[in-house]
Amino acid sequence: MLSKAQIKHIKLLSVQKYRKQEKQFVAEGEKVVSEWLQSEEVIHQILATPEWAAQHQPLFDRHPEAKVHIVEASLLTSLSSLKAPKNVMLVVQLAEPTTLAAADEWTLVLDSIQDPGNMGSIIRIADWFGVSQIVSSKESVDYYNPKVIQAAMGSHLRVRLYQEDLNDFIARSSIPVLATVLDGSSIYSLPPFPKALLMIGNEGNGLSPALVQRATNKVTIPRVGGAESLNAAMATGICCSHLLPH
Amino acid sequence: MLSKAQIKHIKLLSVQKYRKQEKQFVAEGEKVVSEWLQSEEVIHQILATPEWAAQHQPLFDRHPEAKVHIVEASLLTSLSSLKAPKNVMLVVQLAEPTTLAAADEWTLVLDSIQDPGNMGSIIRIADWFGVSQIVSSKESVDYYNPKVIQAAMGSHLRVRLYQEDLNDFIARSSIPVLATVLDGSSIYSLPPFPKALLMIGNEGNGLSPALVQRATNKVTIPRVGGAESLNAAMATGICCSHLLPH
Repeated sequence: MLSKAQIKHIKLLSVQKYRKQEKQFVAEGEKVVSEWLQSEEVIHQILATPEWAAQHQPLFDRHPEAKVHIVEASLLTSLSSLKAPKNVMLVVQLAEPTTLAAADEWTLVLDSIQDPGNMGSIIRIADWFGVSQIVSSKESVDYYNPKVIQAAMGSHLRVRLYQEDLNDFIARSSIPVLATVLDGSSIYSLPPFPKALLMIGNEGNGLSPALVQRATNKVTIPRVGGAESLNAAMATGICCSHLLPH
Repeated sequence: MLSKAQIKHIKLLSVQKYRKQEKQFVAEGEKVVSEWLQSEEVIHQILATPEWAAQHQPLFDRHPEAKVHIVEASLLTSLSSLKAPKNVMLVVQLAEPTTLAAADEWTLVLDSIQDPGNMGSIIRIADWFGVSQIVSSKESVDYYNPKVIQAAMGSHLRVRLYQEDLNDFIARSSIPVLATVLDGSSIYSLPPFPKALLMIGNEGNGLSPALVQRATNKVTIPRVGGAESLNAAMATGICCSHLLPH
């Protein structure tokens, strides 16, 4: 049985400031939850319906540190940030990196990505293509926003996620810096880069001019048809597919 | 002033069967609405707040056939399928193709795409890359679902959208048929195809085996990292970027 205070705590974890303060976040959705339960991360609480708990006992056993609450589906629905009804929810330790990002590794550099679905998709893309770190500006949506967690489908577990001043990060690096812009070299004309920082801009405004100035290469996905733009996550996926070694 | 019957009519257009019967659909969101008002499509009704109407009179003037209703924002919110509040909504003539799809053109072939966001993104990708038609199975989500309209950002206006039996369509065609599968040739090893049908499978189950059997080439986006899968729309975008001529 969850106390009122415990319910309030979980609800408050939808707020970024509270997540930072408590160093905890919520993971939902069966695929996402399964990924976390299979990991070595510290799980504080598992809330599950009796049916889900019965079917997934071996996963629970991997996390003796977690407090398990068997609850009604209606409670999970009332706590959920998602639309579809869910059978399980975790409260997970939020372990932020204690060091700065590695300066000379293949990195996605995100300038004010606002949409949680885009951020989650970008983390998943990094994971698919084997990009081991992302650095985002402080203006970007929080990596631990519930919708970001959901869209990334567990890829948080395999990609190192940093938030720092992008100019400082680029200044520390000595590998090529690629700016995705509208008037750059076609990605089809470029060979893959053994190492690079790939900068992706805000959904509406693109990259800030100060960052474009720091680029060693400007790159563009040439448009053939009539669509005005590509979604930021889609553009990231297409650039990764062409510009990473394979 | 909208009558109760008119309000009911607009609400019912969220249902596929009613859209087919009435040959009308709803377009919402400022970018989407602007695209339709700039087109030659037949607009039946424009619902707009006084402020939006005042700012967009030249667009309204392009559509003397449309009945304009100046309404409160609260009415638009109550009629909307979208989360964010909107200032305008259109009821548009649904003009389905009267002929079969062209058999020997670059085409995206969709086998049971279920998620409206994915379908809309795929229409937008086709438009970006200059693919002029999509053929989807009857099990796929309807092209005129409100969330599909929203995600496609007006690309419905530039891509011909067909729904027919995929086996019949492929049988009519004589160009390469590419199946996106998990164990095919790497897209990085293939040259672009001057013409082809690119088949994309259902989000959970992939392509049906009967369709894979009809493929002349099986293609795969090689995975480097740990993510279990790519989103269907993302996979479509990446395949288009490599397999279309550029």
